[in-house]
Amino acid sequence: MNSVQLIYASSACADMRYLGQVMVPDPFMAFIVEGRSIAVLNQLEYARVCKCGRFDEVLLQEAIAEKAAAYFQKAVSAVRTIDLMVYLLSEYSTGSVCVPKDFPAGLAFELKAAGIDVSCATGAFFPQRVKKNEAELKALKAGNRASADGIRAAMAVLEEAKVKNGRLVHGGRALTSERLREVIEIACLKHDAVSESVIVAGGRQACDPHEVGHGPLSANELIIIDVFPQVRSTGYHGDLTRTVLKGRATDAQRQLVAAVRAAHSAAVKTLKAGISGAAVHAAAKDVFQEKGYATGRVDDHFEGFIHSTGHGLGLQVHEEPRVSPSGEVLPEGAVVTIEPGLYYPQLGAVRIEDVFRVGKEGAEKLSRLSYQWEIA
Amino acid sequence: MNSVQLIYASSACADMRYLGQVMVPDPFMAFIVEGRSIAVLNQLEYARVCKCGRFDEVLLQEAIAEKAAAYFQKAVSAVRTIDLMVYLLSEYSTGSVCVPKDFPAGLAFELKAAGIDVSCATGAFFPQRVKKNEAELKALKAGNRASADGIRAAMAVLEEAKVKNGRLVHGGRALTSERLREVIEIACLKHDAVSESVIVAGGRQACDPHEVGHGPLSANELIIIDVFPQVRSTGYHGDLTRTVLKGRATDAQRQLVAAVRAAHSAAVKTLKAGISGAAVHAAAKDVFQEKGYATGRVDDHFEGFIHSTGHGLGLQVHEEPRVSPSGEVLPEGAVVTIEPGLYYPQLGAVRIEDVFRVGKEGAEKLSRLSYQWEIA
Repeated sequence: MNSVQLIYASSACADMRYLGQVMVPDPFMAFIVEGRSIAVLNQLEYARVCKCGRFDEVLLQEAIAEKAAAYFQKAVSAVRTIDLMVYLLSEYSTGSVCVPKDFPAGLAFELKAAGIDVSCATGAFFPQRVKKNEAELKALKAGNRASADGIRAAMAVLEEAKVKNGRLVHGGRALTSERLREVIEIACLKHDAVSESVIVAGGRQACDPHEVGHGPLSANELIIIDVFPQVRSTGYHGDLTRTVLKGRATDAQRQLVAAVRAAHSAAVKTLKAGISGAAVHAAAKDVFQEKGYATGRVDDHFEGFIHSTGHGLGLQVHEEPRVSPSGEVLPEGAVVTIEPGLYYPQLGAVRIEDVFRVGKEGAEKLSRLSYQWEIA
Repeated sequence: MNSVQLIYASSACADMRYLGQVMVPDPFMAFIVEGRSIAVLNQLEYARVCKCGRFDEVLLQEAIAEKAAAYFQKAVSAVRTIDLMVYLLSEYSTGSVCVPKDFPAGLAFELKAAGIDVSCATGAFFPQRVKKNEAELKALKAGNRASADGIRAAMAVLEEAKVKNGRLVHGGRALTSERLREVIEIACLKHDAVSESVIVAGGRQACDPHEVGHGPLSANELIIIDVFPQVRSTGYHGDLTRTVLKGRATDAQRQLVAAVRAAHSAAVKTLKAGISGAAVHAAAKDVFQEKGYATGRVDDHFEGFIHSTGHGLGLQVHEEPRVSPSGEVLPEGAVVTIEPGLYYPQLGAVRIEDVFRVGKEGAEKLSRLSYQWEIA
């Protein structure tokens, strides 16, 4: 028979969520045997997963533990996770199992010690995850509606904000990254979408792409707002970024924004099934090079176009395929972000990000959000 | 020399967060060599982690990749994660490495294939994580303040709610689990605390302990509210549960609540350094047994006291030590939840949960929240 596939993870693991389409907070095991998915859940999860999950079969862990105890001639209380696995593999008449790359090494070693031949998937465990189906596209659009409403809510606050001594003020208090973040998070919650982090970073802070931002926001500085929440009911994400400025931009800031818009457009124009992620990345990079925006290390930091152009989006914020210098061919149905950016501590940072489905002839945008960025 | 320890994870992994005390969204590697922690971060993370993290040393991944390329005589663009690991292990003059149980099997197998002797920690990777220091206790108290304010916000809405045809109404609309959850989440956000899920489950729904709850809430039914957010700045959680009822409780409901309160008190009374988690669990279980609340399988579901009494709380919602039938000795400084519950589909469900530090002489409660539960 074919090798059995085995995952051991909570549904925070994207492969497990993909397989079972149900939230389970603690790790559990699921097998794929001859194309059928079989999950083992304890009494706390069993009934709910039977009802709400999409496994072909759900086994009650307590019942399997009794059988494993008899099989190994030990007390039920002494049965461990590895015993359940080895017992079930014997039931499936196989001595070999294929696990994902992020399978826990501890269990992998125990399986080997028990005489099981464990092989690790060299690529994606579920290669079909890269091509999004209709339900997934709908879920991704919902995620991006949450992101867009988050950014719109922030824009509305910035519209209302006043400038005092160069700092932004709203509701009589300093407008901080933290306050604006909260506004965004509440807007996302209205879509049942929750954010591990939301980036609202102004000025020099924004030049560190993973700095979430803190403290008072200033007038006339570029502010990056990057919102990538997960919709709880589906597990799929949105991921949009806009760069805005309250006050009046300088020519240098306007040129920076225009360059990033141009790189964004150039990358999107290349996007269609069969092109490589590397070629899409190169299209964005070329625009910056033509316009004379240099990239490289300066003293203790890096500036310019210091990250890749995009990444796959789905049950993970960052997933396959990559739109980077090493990005492989994009298949039809892949969903990727396009998010070029420029980072210069003396001037500020700009990143503009949207989400696209890769189609046969071109890209379909899965998000809707204005590019207006200067707020008087 | 001693075996080098190696982790490869994002800071969503509690061990990595514990070691570096900084948020990094994508997986990276960190070594512990002779008691010094050394992280390898790419240019996107390098400067921020140098500034905000607590690693003893941070290496720039791009610089290590160049050295690894020279070492293996390959192009820098062909250097993979495993190459960086093997190169650095050679720099640390060791051919053996110890990894945590949840280390990715894919990398573990590649390390072995490269001739590295890989052993897996049999227990906790950082055993010291179980004993919380002053900073951690402060962070846990902050987490529980978020939980408490979340539940208080829900209580305030329930106070204001009206009853119409047996259903709860607030602001002219049906009061649902979803609406009450949003109120709680917003209250948690004010504490910079974010919840992957918040349980607001009434009536029969609450009898499934991991059902988060959905749809209109009814009068006179027991509603479980379980709030376990993570404070983003520290990574530590709160975890509190109250069971409430809007309207008028029956005698059977009151007895159920009283039994759970009694089991909660009995468990807390036993809590001190040196006692086993199993003994604490038994104390709660005994109360239910004495009062005649049976536990077991009934048709397709389980009812009674169907989960363990508690669990460790820290960077993970569920971590060591367990307060369960197999719970081991609790050391001084451990932080655990005490959360007995009873679940009977015909009657409803009750769970009451607080968080305690295990002290030499007894337990110190790390949370403050009223036990008021009947709301007229």
